[in-house]
Amino acid sequence: MRVAIDAMGGDHAPKAPVLGTIEAARKLKDAEFVLVGKESEIRLYAHDLPDNVKIMHASDVIAPHAEPVKSVRRQKDSSLVVCTSLVRDGQADAMVSAGNTGAFMVAGLFVVGRMTGIERPALAAMLPTFKGKGVLLLDAGANTDSSPKNLVQWAQMGQAYMRLTHQMAKPRVGLLNIGSEPGKGNELCKTAYGMLENTCTDFIGNVEARELLNGVCDVVVCDGFVGNVLVKFYEGAGIGLLDSLKQLFLATPLTKLAALSMRSGLKAFRSRFDYAEYGGGPFLGVRGVLVKAHGSSSSRAFEMAIRHAYKMQSGGLIQDLERSLQG
Amino acid sequence: MRVAIDAMGGDHAPKAPVLGTIEAARKLKDAEFVLVGKESEIRLYAHDLPDNVKIMHASDVIAPHAEPVKSVRRQKDSSLVVCTSLVRDGQADAMVSAGNTGAFMVAGLFVVGRMTGIERPALAAMLPTFKGKGVLLLDAGANTDSSPKNLVQWAQMGQAYMRLTHQMAKPRVGLLNIGSEPGKGNELCKTAYGMLENTCTDFIGNVEARELLNGVCDVVVCDGFVGNVLVKFYEGAGIGLLDSLKQLFLATPLTKLAALSMRSGLKAFRSRFDYAEYGGGPFLGVRGVLVKAHGSSSSRAFEMAIRHAYKMQSGGLIQDLERSLQG
Repeated sequence: MRVAIDAMGGDHAPKAPVLGTIEAARKLKDAEFVLVGKESEIRLYAHDLPDNVKIMHASDVIAPHAEPVKSVRRQKDSSLVVCTSLVRDGQADAMVSAGNTGAFMVAGLFVVGRMTGIERPALAAMLPTFKGKGVLLLDAGANTDSSPKNLVQWAQMGQAYMRLTHQMAKPRVGLLNIGSEPGKGNELCKTAYGMLENTCTDFIGNVEARELLNGVCDVVVCDGFVGNVLVKFYEGAGIGLLDSLKQLFLATPLTKLAALSMRSGLKAFRSRFDYAEYGGGPFLGVRGVLVKAHGSSSSRAFEMAIRHAYKMQSGGLIQDLERSLQG
Repeated sequence: MRVAIDAMGGDHAPKAPVLGTIEAARKLKDAEFVLVGKESEIRLYAHDLPDNVKIMHASDVIAPHAEPVKSVRRQKDSSLVVCTSLVRDGQADAMVSAGNTGAFMVAGLFVVGRMTGIERPALAAMLPTFKGKGVLLLDAGANTDSSPKNLVQWAQMGQAYMRLTHQMAKPRVGLLNIGSEPGKGNELCKTAYGMLENTCTDFIGNVEARELLNGVCDVVVCDGFVGNVLVKFYEGAGIGLLDSLKQLFLATPLTKLAALSMRSGLKAFRSRFDYAEYGGGPFLGVRGVLVKAHGSSSSRAFEMAIRHAYKMQSGGLIQDLERSLQG
């Protein structure tokens, strides 16, 4: 197996992707890794390159806030577009990038391409929950103004993904809605509810956002506008909250002592809600394993995202999705 | 001024509404208060009724999860419908209820009625923020599949409300969106952006959910489905988080000691994010001051919601809204 890594994407590139790749490569000795980007910059951090890591020079970089469609079309030699081209041409089985999310999705759609039968690929985000093992949300922002059929396909893909990556026999699917009874919500939800009930095994019905972090379902589907708002709100609230707690703990010598006494508990709490442990979100419904790592990914986060991509590919996720779409 | 209180609505009724009303009445001596509901049950908690509190018997109660339209239509003598009838007939200037949210909105719409020119009244929710004084979100769930014009009217109403209740000269309005640049988002946002830019003073553009709790704007507008998801998610995350922190602090004798040393800080943090302090959400765009208190409202929360309704009415919010709609 070969995994391509966009060495120029993310706030801490190329250091974090390079170091994360080296770490992953040491553990996954049966796979090959290709660091794609400006060779001279990659070399700065690639002193001790394991045998199973190669560098592929790409002269260009898509900026974090560049307009996605234009950049992908024009910047053919950007690290991101080169990575997706490798997947399209079968020279890589999987790829990981922490770069421009919009460009990542555009390149996934137009360079790699959709799976047969999938109307709209979706970005999936694993949200840490207070109870249970987390919930996979689709769509986290690849689509707006989604159709009921989109939601049904995302439910199917989400279940296949959770079966493979979380060894769940029967992942429960919820429809994110503003009431728990059938018939609630907007036009999208009203139609999607009936379709999910008829086609989706283990559909548990509407799920209100209040319950989402209580482990009530394993997969939750919603329009990508709603999903993106929710995921970003979660992130912003998490950051704000950690800041506030930090200030509380740093207030006086006594509270600093308190923090010390609670160190292990606080650390466990923090790591439970840490992006780095979740290995990035897959872009499901394209013909290849594409993983979007968070923009602020550390080398540890890259390592987890790469290991995650490895697991998806070695477990045969794409073949599994193809089968479940035909079935 | 006369304020009607639905004494039967909410998880802790009639105790919490009755005690909250008594507390408020002692402070607001120039106003009259009417407790509406089952007299025998109200009397259980109304030993020391101040002179400015009256009881009005209503024999029926709308259940928390009853179907809104049917209940309002059929249960004419329910505490909620009687409260709204008092407002409609000019026998009360304002009302507060912690009952069935759907029924509250239906009664507001069909018993009290919309203000001239307002297409869709909106439920406003004040979200506590990490920085700044909180952000008013509309619509928090009164409408789904909203139009761009709805959002523009909500921006206008939200500004009028913040000017009056928060003494802000120029409340800043943001459009909740999934990207910060103009032209981002779904069809609703794309159209609403231009309309807000042309009509709304102090429109600051798109606001991403990640930034929402950082005090970047004072009013944020969005479709009611999105707003309801966000408000409920906020609530669920807050409850889950407080539970988790509690467990951390109760883990060992040492952490219990730590909690003790941080008591005042934790208390301040908690009260900052406490519903009770925010006095409930107004239903804006109907012909009267209608305040929806949270279902789990304590007597303190009721007191705050009642004082809030008093402030809105004494400040002339409805007249102000009418003027700003004509202007």
